Amino acid sequence: MNGLNIVSSRVLSSTITRGALPRCLKSTFSPYGNIRNLSATSIPHDSPVNAQIQHRDTYLQAHCAPYTPRTHNCGALTLQDAGSTVILNGWLLTERKVNKKFSFFPLQDSYGTTQLVIHPDDLPEVAAFMRSIPPESTVQVEGEVHSRPPSQRRPVPAGEIEVTVKSMKLLNPADPHLPFMPSDTHNLANEDLRMRYRYLDLRRPTLSSNLKKRSKVAHIIRSVLHDNDFTEVETPILLKSTPEGAREYLVPTRLTSAAPEGDSSNVQPLFYALPQSPQQPKQLLIASGSVDRYYQIARCFRDEDGRKDRQPEFTQVDLEMAWVSWGDPHSPDTTQLPRFTEEWRIGGREVKDIIENLIRTIWYEVEGIELPKSFKIMSYEEAMCRFGSDKPDIRFGLEIQDITSRLSAEMKASLEASGEIMEAIIVEGSDKPFNRAAKRVQKTPLEPGVQFVKPDTDVRIHLGLSNDATIWMAKRKRIAEGGSTSLGRLRLALSSIAQKLGDLVLPSDPHFLWVTEFPLFTRADEDKEFLAHGRWSSSHHPFTAPMWQDVQKMYEGRIGEVRGQHYDLVLNGMEIGGGSVRVHDAAMQEYIFSKVLQLDEKEKSSFKHLLHALKCGAPPHGGIALGFDRLMSILCKTESIRDVIAFPKTGSGTDLLFKSPAPVSAETLREYGIQQRNG
Amino acid sequence: MNGLNIVSSRVLSSTITRGALPRCLKSTFSPYGNIRNLSATSIPHDSPVNAQIQHRDTYLQAHCAPYTPRTHNCGALTLQDAGSTVILNGWLLTERKVNKKFSFFPLQDSYGTTQLVIHPDDLPEVAAFMRSIPPESTVQVEGEVHSRPPSQRRPVPAGEIEVTVKSMKLLNPADPHLPFMPSDTHNLANEDLRMRYRYLDLRRPTLSSNLKKRSKVAHIIRSVLHDNDFTEVETPILLKSTPEGAREYLVPTRLTSAAPEGDSSNVQPLFYALPQSPQQPKQLLIASGSVDRYYQIARCFRDEDGRKDRQPEFTQVDLEMAWVSWGDPHSPDTTQLPRFTEEWRIGGREVKDIIENLIRTIWYEVEGIELPKSFKIMSYEEAMCRFGSDKPDIRFGLEIQDITSRLSAEMKASLEASGEIMEAIIVEGSDKPFNRAAKRVQKTPLEPGVQFVKPDTDVRIHLGLSNDATIWMAKRKRIAEGGSTSLGRLRLALSSIAQKLGDLVLPSDPHFLWVTEFPLFTRADEDKEFLAHGRWSSSHHPFTAPMWQDVQKMYEGRIGEVRGQHYDLVLNGMEIGGGSVRVHDAAMQEYIFSKVLQLDEKEKSSFKHLLHALKCGAPPHGGIALGFDRLMSILCKTESIRDVIAFPKTGSGTDLLFKSPAPVSAETLREYGIQQRNG
Repeated sequence: MNGLNIVSSRVLSSTITRGALPRCLKSTFSPYGNIRNLSATSIPHDSPVNAQIQHRDTYLQAHCAPYTPRTHNCGALTLQDAGSTVILNGWLLTERKVNKKFSFFPLQDSYGTTQLVIHPDDLPEVAAFMRSIPPESTVQVEGEVHSRPPSQRRPVPAGEIEVTVKSMKLLNPADPHLPFMPSDTHNLANEDLRMRYRYLDLRRPTLSSNLKKRSKVAHIIRSVLHDNDFTEVETPILLKSTPEGAREYLVPTRLTSAAPEGDSSNVQPLFYALPQSPQQPKQLLIASGSVDRYYQIARCFRDEDGRKDRQPEFTQVDLEMAWVSWGDPHSPDTTQLPRFTEEWRIGGREVKDIIENLIRTIWYEVEGIELPKSFKIMSYEEAMCRFGSDKPDIRFGLEIQDITSRLSAEMKASLEASGEIMEAIIVEGSDKPFNRAAKRVQKTPLEPGVQFVKPDTDVRIHLGLSNDATIWMAKRKRIAEGGSTSLGRLRLALSSIAQKLGDLVLPSDPHFLWVTEFPLFTRADEDKEFLAHGRWSSSHHPFTAPMWQDVQKMYEGRIGEVRGQHYDLVLNGMEIGGGSVRVHDAAMQEYIFSKVLQLDEKEKSSFKHLLHALKCGAPPHGGIALGFDRLMSILCKTESIRDVIAFPKTGSGTDLLFKSPAPVSAETLREYGIQQRNG
Repeated sequence: MNGLNIVSSRVLSSTITRGALPRCLKSTFSPYGNIRNLSATSIPHDSPVNAQIQHRDTYLQAHCAPYTPRTHNCGALTLQDAGSTVILNGWLLTERKVNKKFSFFPLQDSYGTTQLVIHPDDLPEVAAFMRSIPPESTVQVEGEVHSRPPSQRRPVPAGEIEVTVKSMKLLNPADPHLPFMPSDTHNLANEDLRMRYRYLDLRRPTLSSNLKKRSKVAHIIRSVLHDNDFTEVETPILLKSTPEGAREYLVPTRLTSAAPEGDSSNVQPLFYALPQSPQQPKQLLIASGSVDRYYQIARCFRDEDGRKDRQPEFTQVDLEMAWVSWGDPHSPDTTQLPRFTEEWRIGGREVKDIIENLIRTIWYEVEGIELPKSFKIMSYEEAMCRFGSDKPDIRFGLEIQDITSRLSAEMKASLEASGEIMEAIIVEGSDKPFNRAAKRVQKTPLEPGVQFVKPDTDVRIHLGLSNDATIWMAKRKRIAEGGSTSLGRLRLALSSIAQKLGDLVLPSDPHFLWVTEFPLFTRADEDKEFLAHGRWSSSHHPFTAPMWQDVQKMYEGRIGEVRGQHYDLVLNGMEIGGGSVRVHDAAMQEYIFSKVLQLDEKEKSSFKHLLHALKCGAPPHGGIALGFDRLMSILCKTESIRDVIAFPKTGSGTDLLFKSPAPVSAETLREYGIQQRNG
């Protein structure tokens, strides 16, 4: 067959039965104008005929004509249906010959797989036809339901029955040479190949199940929020570039800036930018009073260097509420360090409540797990002290200990003078799950500043520990800062190794945790330099409100002591969401911009509308955003968020299926006032 | 007061009551390091104190500290609540002095407006305080609920009661000089000003109500689809440029094409594109079999010249289904022209059913209107013949008449020879609603080809019409083509004028209509030239399947006779959605691309993955997309879709609030491998 023949189409419905009257439509034609007779008589295309295939075509045709509606999907049939005749549609997979008398063919769709049984002796043409169909073709089957022998039954959809085939119609043949077999789930092709043919890989039951679960969770989220009087509002995607954290994607337009008089060469092309989050529009929305409570399952964009398991576009569950509380005037405030608390002493309790409601509902309806009514709360300081991380994994112990007081007077004095403390991780002989991991770690290089405490040293004596214990020590500033400490990272490494060795099995129930009372401002570092010319930058973002207890300190210039009304939601050591009570006082926001962060006029200009909106009578407000892809990845227990996204990109941001990003003609770029960079 | 003072913040809770113990927190400080005492003693900031304001500050401060939760929103209170003490939060609007004894102040939020009553003689400080607060400030009120005198009651939320103020706390003062007053709804500021300060305009109850209705409708849509086993799937926004209709927005990346060996100057910058619709990903998704039924409320993008009432980004309710029908083999097929039908003779009945279900549910739950179980169906030809439009407004008559047979033999023969017919609009003396409009139209210039039939002419005699009737005639091709005819446009003009004159009042109930059996291919014109080098282009898109009755014709080359399985949903003369059964047969799709549309290799290459997906055993499938913004605009009865979008752009695509699109530095552009166009 030459190329033309292979793409020639003949509408042919191949329905082979024995005895019964097939519903068949047949027309004979060729795409090039000549009518070729395929059977002895010319059959008008709307007459049902007995269709014994007279010729031996080696290629099969799609069915492009009416066909019977199915009666069930491939996961629906149960023992109750035994004895009935059904019609199913699905993907025909590879034959499993049992013996000469009968064969199994799986028929799969997104609901499940029905086992088809064919008896070649009884229906030789049907069997031959079925065997001629390439696996992964879509077919329609008419057959009779039978219960499987009890030993054959499986606790899966349609797992108790099988369907004996009476007739089969080919709906759409698959190419016999597919890049890989999606049904071959134990022998997955390499990821790049599967991403290139994502429409084939998506056929895998795991991915299908992940997408369905994602849809279910999204619907739960919306229903809970809807029932709690939240209004879903869509915010713009074509927005404006803001100097906030990561690099933003731009969108060229055919609009240009107005030409200064007489100088048309000074016209600049104008760009939208894709938002990293709906932060600004949502604050403006709540400031307007148009809605009391906003939510959106929003697409966000971030042009970052390919970090592990990130996508250039990702989804957040985003919400904001008016009239959030600003804390409890009667809650005791520990001004002494370290500030440990198990209470929610900041504002935004309403956000906490709705999120816990959401999460509890999701885990109950999807996992069947009942979570506590209220999640554990920990202050930033406690998290850093005990776990060396602002998103602690509290599923295991091995907590960090402050050993400052147990050191020699000399060392204590030295630490005091430099405003530091000494911490340690101590793995006792009795900490069985960590013994082998501890030995492994001893062989690996340590981070600078982390010191392995050798046996028979003074420190050990002071600590009162035997040589049985493994001890690492490190100094750090007394006031915690940053996301993690070296000992915190060591703790995670020990856990990771212990799990790989099989010594440590983490509890399976999810461990949720709120972390609150973060410092509002951090000493400026390279990451955030562009948003702070002074000594300080915002730990999270500049719109976070200070705790009411620390407002006075902020105005007195004691910036490092100011805690923010920010809250992170941590699950099993992963940050799945974060938010805060916002500044609603325009004067306070202006103070933060100008006096604390010392933004210049240009930087402040991007926030002009926010400042003005606050001056139009914005209510106290706060909100949160959850990383939806990550949440789904956790719920679906996938390695990567790629497995919970229908059409993900690779780590470097390329789409192997759609072949993007791609070059664009110089002509098109010219329309947008731009061109490829010279040199 | 200098600028610095105005932005200085003092956390001051101004709660003035008479007698009762106010909850008040007061701290005295200044942002610049000096503590200033505002009252005789230094009051620790967490002691409740009797707060008589000692000084006469002329500016008011935001409340940045804990405050009591409200007990109700501003639309909640009813007669049942009379006698109770409540706490409300909201926007304080302008005082309405009734007499010396009492005043009203409206307190508004997104739920409604509660009437506050203040008795200045009883509470002079509270009254003075309230009068000092600029309108649109956010406040908290404590007061007692009283029923209004029956004559004062209104059938609106909180319309039966009023609240007598006991105390008021200022939460956030508004600037006394706002750009406009959002509460001044009868005297709207010009649209550009309101768009620039959208966060103020959104406070208008109309816009708030529109956004809430939009959220409600979105939730209805999702719930109905969810209950019908649809899976919500997010498709990519960072996609690839496709040669499909309107211009697409591009997104520069920092990725570049691989440099050919030794030639690093030949490296091209690479771009994503923003999708005009999820068409390709959704077809690939259904082809994969991962889900049976997909839906998404999807953001779409289109870089068009500013057309009337369009946005560069807009929202579609998008869905696709596997296993859609391909029609009824027994339905009679009229091969004779004109092909009028009231039946659904194409495939995709499942899409029709779910959409009717959706629309009926929306109209019932939102409007309280019960729509018919099944909508009217009309073929494209009937729509063009009777109404001269492929989206006919069937709320009024004045149908176009084919008068060919009533003309002279000479004229008939001439028309026959040129394959044309003669049509007419006839406004009889008895068509009262159109009489005056008809006179008006006589005075306006007509489209070329439309002829006003003067009194006492032969044509009139042949038509048997008196001089009382007003008649316009026009020829057109016998086989209808395009979206409307000149007489169709004239018909709409007559209706528009008649409505403006008040002679014609259209029925208020919504008139839904399916239009089916469009020609699959159109003779290529300039609009679509880039997608057709031969004589034909796709009327809708190249993936639309032909009606099964016309498949043979297509392969025989009788392209103009082929009707597509496309369906448009029309409401009151507006197209609100459209979709089709797709081609699932790769060979057929290839035939359409190569033989009918005659796409070149480059054009076909953008569809390579779709063709291959069809070859991997794609099921028969079909879907639809509804214009969600337009649907909401109709439901909310707004002039423009801007009034149902939270942050819309102007007609020219600019965002007056966020000041986008905006220039981008040359340095940033360099990172993306591009620069401003030279010259």
